Amino acid sequence: MPAPQEFLKYVEDHTDDFVDRLAKAVAIPSVSGEVAYRKHVFEMADFMYSELKALGCEEVKKVPLGEQILEGQTLQLPPAILASYGNDPKKKTILVYGHYDVQPALKSDGWETEPFVLTKHADGRLIGRGSSDDKGPILGWLNVIESHRALGLDLPVNLKMCFEGMEESGSEGLDDLIEDQKDKFFKGTDAVCISDNYWLNTTTPCLTYGLRGIAYFALKVSGPARDLHSGVFGGSTHEPMTDLITILSTLVLPNGKILIPGLAELVAPLKPGELERYENINFSIADIENATGSKTTISTDKVQTLMSRMREPSLSLHGIEGAFYSPGAKTVIPASVTGKFSIRLVPDMLPDEIEKLVAKHVASEFAKLNTKNMMHLEMGHGGKPWVADPDHWNYRAAATATEGVYGQKPDLTREGGSIPVTLSFADALGVNVLLLPMGRGDDGAHSINEKLDLSNYIKGTQLLGSYLHEVAALSE
Amino acid sequence: MPAPQEFLKYVEDHTDDFVDRLAKAVAIPSVSGEVAYRKHVFEMADFMYSELKALGCEEVKKVPLGEQILEGQTLQLPPAILASYGNDPKKKTILVYGHYDVQPALKSDGWETEPFVLTKHADGRLIGRGSSDDKGPILGWLNVIESHRALGLDLPVNLKMCFEGMEESGSEGLDDLIEDQKDKFFKGTDAVCISDNYWLNTTTPCLTYGLRGIAYFALKVSGPARDLHSGVFGGSTHEPMTDLITILSTLVLPNGKILIPGLAELVAPLKPGELERYENINFSIADIENATGSKTTISTDKVQTLMSRMREPSLSLHGIEGAFYSPGAKTVIPASVTGKFSIRLVPDMLPDEIEKLVAKHVASEFAKLNTKNMMHLEMGHGGKPWVADPDHWNYRAAATATEGVYGQKPDLTREGGSIPVTLSFADALGVNVLLLPMGRGDDGAHSINEKLDLSNYIKGTQLLGSYLHEVAALSE
Repeated sequence: MPAPQEFLKYVEDHTDDFVDRLAKAVAIPSVSGEVAYRKHVFEMADFMYSELKALGCEEVKKVPLGEQILEGQTLQLPPAILASYGNDPKKKTILVYGHYDVQPALKSDGWETEPFVLTKHADGRLIGRGSSDDKGPILGWLNVIESHRALGLDLPVNLKMCFEGMEESGSEGLDDLIEDQKDKFFKGTDAVCISDNYWLNTTTPCLTYGLRGIAYFALKVSGPARDLHSGVFGGSTHEPMTDLITILSTLVLPNGKILIPGLAELVAPLKPGELERYENINFSIADIENATGSKTTISTDKVQTLMSRMREPSLSLHGIEGAFYSPGAKTVIPASVTGKFSIRLVPDMLPDEIEKLVAKHVASEFAKLNTKNMMHLEMGHGGKPWVADPDHWNYRAAATATEGVYGQKPDLTREGGSIPVTLSFADALGVNVLLLPMGRGDDGAHSINEKLDLSNYIKGTQLLGSYLHEVAALSE
Repeated sequence: MPAPQEFLKYVEDHTDDFVDRLAKAVAIPSVSGEVAYRKHVFEMADFMYSELKALGCEEVKKVPLGEQILEGQTLQLPPAILASYGNDPKKKTILVYGHYDVQPALKSDGWETEPFVLTKHADGRLIGRGSSDDKGPILGWLNVIESHRALGLDLPVNLKMCFEGMEESGSEGLDDLIEDQKDKFFKGTDAVCISDNYWLNTTTPCLTYGLRGIAYFALKVSGPARDLHSGVFGGSTHEPMTDLITILSTLVLPNGKILIPGLAELVAPLKPGELERYENINFSIADIENATGSKTTISTDKVQTLMSRMREPSLSLHGIEGAFYSPGAKTVIPASVTGKFSIRLVPDMLPDEIEKLVAKHVASEFAKLNTKNMMHLEMGHGGKPWVADPDHWNYRAAATATEGVYGQKPDLTREGGSIPVTLSFADALGVNVLLLPMGRGDDGAHSINEKLDLSNYIKGTQLLGSYLHEVAALSE
């Protein structure tokens, strides 16, 4: 049951209206991370609330999520917006999630155009903060409802919507809401669809069925009570930097191989047919070289490179707190230095187990140093990896819809980073979660000149609608 | 020929006058490193000029040293003050050096007292910026001249004086002056005496006959065109931090042993009798533990600890430019990172040779990494080590004078850091240079609450005078 032609046509015919809706949303600078902008985040919540009401949605609510302290001030968190459309027990119920807050943006950061004025470029780019992350996608759902209402068509599924206003600031309050509402508003959800990521490249739509988790570590070595002059104390005193650098050098090889014993054994073996998924992805080494602006890709093999990003752990050394970091020369022996590193986790690695392995390894390496300094390891944020079953009807529906709208099979991808809300929904509701991106890999979500291509916005809206129709067809 | 008793008595009897002279000098905030204070550096030059004139010195000159750019402004450098006292071809000629500029100081930095008001503490401390570094010592020479004049005594040597006003700011202009004047004003110098360092501890006077040199390095590893997200690129891309940390870990062991091939072979072997000098130094492991505020001293052996500081090279890792250095967590892969490290040099290590050895070593280690990133090594400032003959009459005179004034043999020390002017005089004039400190190891030269103990100021003045008398006796 593909989407009705009249729906697809309606969306195309109403391109200007839908762009106007996006322009209105982009004009509200709903930056969640800065006190001065908080009122605009609430303004954006009101905008969403009014739009959903006007579209005839039910159960439209602004759910207060409590307070936070930001820049020393106590602030109300922006509300989560909940709404539903349709409530037919014979239909599947799809929960969609998105966020209405955005990253900061100033013209002076280097934007070509005013960041909070949606600007149509001749090449088709709709440039503006939040155009792709994530106002385009959430308005896509609204466009789908509007189109069906205007045509007098029923939605083929019950739709539940959850839009938050703190995604760019750690989704504060959201996990509590999900836990609180899992047997209330979210009850009866058959599957979740999140449109808040990007194609792997600029040409091929994709469905994303996995995310790496993370375990972030701070390894502190300290000894002297104060920073010392290397002329006076160099050679006679154990230097925390030497100890720290020596330990950091035992974590990972320049070719990316992690040296922590026991870690590799936790990585789930390749499943039958899994390799083929990487082979099928439209990707080349040139794509990653283009993204890094360099020829620094470790492997020359496409499948290995994709697997390194999608299904293998990695360890990155981010930096050192407490050491000399400025340009120029300083001859200090820093008294206390903290190395920061993180490990990206894949199934079946869990942060707690990784913490134990890392602690054991660094303790063993530290013992070898024979130093009189002290060491302390702390794990900061940890997040589990996530992987969904891409053969689930939720994915098959999205794949079929993609072929219908774009005329090509989507790439089946996993992402190297994390989108914590994915895991929150998967864990709390126990249903399949699908990541169905609208934008392209070069949208520049957190950068200057963020854009959503007009074709992605319009075809993306068609895709979201078609997906709901395919769900109805394939979930039988 | 010990100093005449009447000289020693005169100094003691005129304690208050000499403290007044120091108070006048401390009251002039001659901070050379800040534009706003530059006029006070000139004021201090005028003070020195007037004092020297009033004491009947000859050839008193303020020598302009040109301009510098500081905080974006073009400023006149403070002049060097040259003066001589006595010109008898039958006498030895001693050149003394000191500096009349000081480090910055603000009460708000945590000073107990106003930094530019010399404050006598009940425990004998004369607290004030510059009291010990280096106004006390340079006024000591003036006190010696004044005492002799008042008593109608000739100085037993010809004295040449060179006082600069930029020592705390890299001695800009001084090397050119030394080079320019070596066959003019400085001609005929038989030995040099510099009073601008400190006792090793708080109880034992010392003579310092060696300084370590330095070679400072910046090792840059770069690859990606921009910082990367570790979620997206971790595992598939060569990370500059991993490469850099791996190379840094091959430079030095946690026990201080330097791993650069060929370097150890350049260290001069122990001379006959040299070991005894370290054994004779009044020093204990508790002294260094007190200084570092920790139990992080590598060796428990006094002689080994002293040798590590005074006659062995050391390598310190100072920090990394370009990596994440703030508190908190950031999951960046830095695109370009520069490790900063330095090697303290001892005879017979020369900076240029060390640069070659380091370059060869890091190139060889980098090749082992098999990375696609790039590496670049740069040597910043380099300074040769310096060592003088402590059996020279210049040292014997100072040792005998110390015994006369303090009733104890001085420690014969070498310092771990560098005092570049020492090498400039030694190289340009080709004569023995003696470092004869006035203050104690805890004077806090560059810290808050800088002090010179009253007894060190007064006995120090007696010492400088006695030294000149012993020179006359022992240099025959």
